[in-house]
Amino acid sequence: MEIQLAVSKTNKYATSDSGDSVEVIERPNGGISVVMADGQSSGKGAKQISYLVVRKVISLLSEGVRDGAAARAASDYLFTERKGKVSSTLNIVSIDLQTATMVITRNNPLPVLIVSTDEICAFDDECNPIGLYRDTRPLISEVPLEPGLLVVLYTDGLVHAGSRSGESLDIKTFLQSIIDDEVDELDEEEISPQKIADSLLAHAVQLDQGRPVDDITIVVIQVSNQKSDSVRRMTVVLPFNL
Amino acid sequence: MEIQLAVSKTNKYATSDSGDSVEVIERPNGGISVVMADGQSSGKGAKQISYLVVRKVISLLSEGVRDGAAARAASDYLFTERKGKVSSTLNIVSIDLQTATMVITRNNPLPVLIVSTDEICAFDDECNPIGLYRDTRPLISEVPLEPGLLVVLYTDGLVHAGSRSGESLDIKTFLQSIIDDEVDELDEEEISPQKIADSLLAHAVQLDQGRPVDDITIVVIQVSNQKSDSVRRMTVVLPFNL
Repeated sequence: MEIQLAVSKTNKYATSDSGDSVEVIERPNGGISVVMADGQSSGKGAKQISYLVVRKVISLLSEGVRDGAAARAASDYLFTERKGKVSSTLNIVSIDLQTATMVITRNNPLPVLIVSTDEICAFDDECNPIGLYRDTRPLISEVPLEPGLLVVLYTDGLVHAGSRSGESLDIKTFLQSIIDDEVDELDEEEISPQKIADSLLAHAVQLDQGRPVDDITIVVIQVSNQKSDSVRRMTVVLPFNL
Repeated sequence: MEIQLAVSKTNKYATSDSGDSVEVIERPNGGISVVMADGQSSGKGAKQISYLVVRKVISLLSEGVRDGAAARAASDYLFTERKGKVSSTLNIVSIDLQTATMVITRNNPLPVLIVSTDEICAFDDECNPIGLYRDTRPLISEVPLEPGLLVVLYTDGLVHAGSRSGESLDIKTFLQSIIDDEVDELDEEEISPQKIADSLLAHAVQLDQGRPVDDITIVVIQVSNQKSDSVRRMTVVLPFNL
């Protein structure tokens, strides 16, 4: 089996810094974790916040700290550092090869979508972003690593896409349509996480008429049954202007 | 312009832990860094060493520490932690958008190959791995970020490929042939870093008759002139057995 993970990320129109941060790291006892944060407001200040949160979490995870404890620590750290005045969302998704589970940790009002054989569930119980209160706790859901499992998470730029013109993106329905289209087209059961992330992002940017009203980050993780060649691969594409 | 980065990585035959570690992180002032380490010997012990080195370096880089200082710190840390008894190679390649340069840091006897318009140079001045001596210094080379710049680095599993049967891989010549083939085929000047990394790895594994004699990690980074859609992308593929 293999894990396939894809991230697509773009900035709010006409800003050089995204308020979203996302990093992927190897877990010390096997597997990987992806950590995504969206700092309050946008631009440089928001970037600093989300970067600080992600950095704290990956540093703790790499020391073997459990995901829930790392999320609590990041919350206390941000609360102390910014005196409870600044918030950030935080999501951690870990592929834990020790427990053979996917561990989904949320400090984000937005849902994490979990696609299994033929339905899309939203892990959307109420929870708070970190940094504003003492004792903020994450919500954690643990799902067995089974072929076909697909998880989609995103920052609020995706939800707000189209708001300038009064439109909006029904993410769950759009996701279902991408999956249905792909399954028909390929006559296969599995589709590429990068295609899903890119389709969602492209549709959002289109609703925003090419000028995203907010930073958008989309993460898609899939457990695949594909026969693998035992090669671990990673690619990064980073657009820039000098 | 955009940076394209690819990593391909496989384990020594019949070992579940690779002694190589590699991580990519965002730099706090813009750009990305890739950090690669190969711990002494192989298996669990080597993995611990290389993971510890990479973790220390990415943690420092994310705080804004310069690459050279981070490499020295990692050396002193490993020397102190393991009493000078264990060594590790260390490579850092950073795309620094503040200075508009690629910064290549080596504590690794193996060269880093730098491909520019029409030649392949080896950055191969003598230097030591970290952890064995006090005051180990890295070698650093800084190259302007220009379209077409391509850098290839690897761990010694690639160099030792074929040693079981007395064969060996002339990496520079093989790299030149991949580049020439691709340019002919595509009638373009740019080729995919993932293709280069995969071709090198596939050839090495073939020389090892499908059973790699050592862990192999290959990193390829390219500065591309492609018109980008301002979307940052990242993919990870992680094979696993439960």
